[in-house]
Amino acid sequence: MKMMIWLSAIAILLCAPRVLLPVQSPVNSNEPAYNANGELAAPQDYRNWVWLSSGLGMAYGPAARANPTGAPPFDNVFVNPIAYRSFLQTGIWPDKATFVLELRSSRNSGSINKGGRFQGDLIGLEVEVKDVSRFPGKWAFFEFPRSGSYAKALPRSAECYTCHAEHGAVDNTFVQFSPTLVDVAKAHGTFRED
Amino acid sequence: MKMMIWLSAIAILLCAPRVLLPVQSPVNSNEPAYNANGELAAPQDYRNWVWLSSGLGMAYGPAARANPTGAPPFDNVFVNPIAYRSFLQTGIWPDKATFVLELRSSRNSGSINKGGRFQGDLIGLEVEVKDVSRFPGKWAFFEFPRSGSYAKALPRSAECYTCHAEHGAVDNTFVQFSPTLVDVAKAHGTFRED
Repeated sequence: MKMMIWLSAIAILLCAPRVLLPVQSPVNSNEPAYNANGELAAPQDYRNWVWLSSGLGMAYGPAARANPTGAPPFDNVFVNPIAYRSFLQTGIWPDKATFVLELRSSRNSGSINKGGRFQGDLIGLEVEVKDVSRFPGKWAFFEFPRSGSYAKALPRSAECYTCHAEHGAVDNTFVQFSPTLVDVAKAHGTFRED
Repeated sequence: MKMMIWLSAIAILLCAPRVLLPVQSPVNSNEPAYNANGELAAPQDYRNWVWLSSGLGMAYGPAARANPTGAPPFDNVFVNPIAYRSFLQTGIWPDKATFVLELRSSRNSGSINKGGRFQGDLIGLEVEVKDVSRFPGKWAFFEFPRSGSYAKALPRSAECYTCHAEHGAVDNTFVQFSPTLVDVAKAHGTFRED
């Protein structure tokens, strides 16, 4: 009997760390989050997501047009990691895929730079979300003011909806501008030539 | 007695998943790896690391000069995640920090692009490593041939050593071209004005 009590005590102690430590965040904690008004929360940690590609002078939306510097902005595109891993396996985006388009000014004067362009201040943040049960047409677009933490989905009349649907090479997204994803999509037969 | 046996059995079963499942890979699995000749293995999964920034026409090394397209290449810089997290807390790079400089051609013809530049084929891969016990001066640079999987450290006479030491804003690296890191370094007092 005494031995059994000890065995129980030891076994319970061995279990204790699992029981007492906080549960680790799920890997899909970077899925879209909304407030009670249905507004999307601006992703806070997107610079830790998977970066897809960057371009220069490629952005034509309101934030790019409002660019105070006049120089062509850089566009940096990130996707939430769980959606990226799913894309690698399937060539399409899963539900809750979230893309951040970060616009930054481009600078050509500074340090040892000899005429190239490097990235400066944040000038805009736009988000595209695939959320099948929430949005008609599955996808929605959002623009975040610099200081804002929530944004409403842009109306369906916004140009991004038709442009992405008509010209996105894969599943409403411009995979054609992310070179490593092009090969993945072509291997899965999901790449649509423009 | 029977109850104690059951308690023991239940407690042991509760523990079983911890004991039987394989141990998770350590978070520092993206540290530099060398072969028996001391050559560095080309990082395989750097596109899943933390992206720091991209520039256009900023690269002046051999790969950029050998660029067959003539157009200014994009440079994309990645750092291993454990080093990034350490930098956020300290403003300097820890031992084993590893940076990948990926050079890609820039294209201006394709899809809906109206004059901007987007990224194309891989044209070069360079790596900078901080490895205090292995390299005199703590840092070493490597160039990987496209098909190569290992590379020797470049000789100390290579221009990258003096350029990074003299002009890198933080700890032998060009943090001045990664806007989000500039603020971190300045907050920690580690940013050196050029």
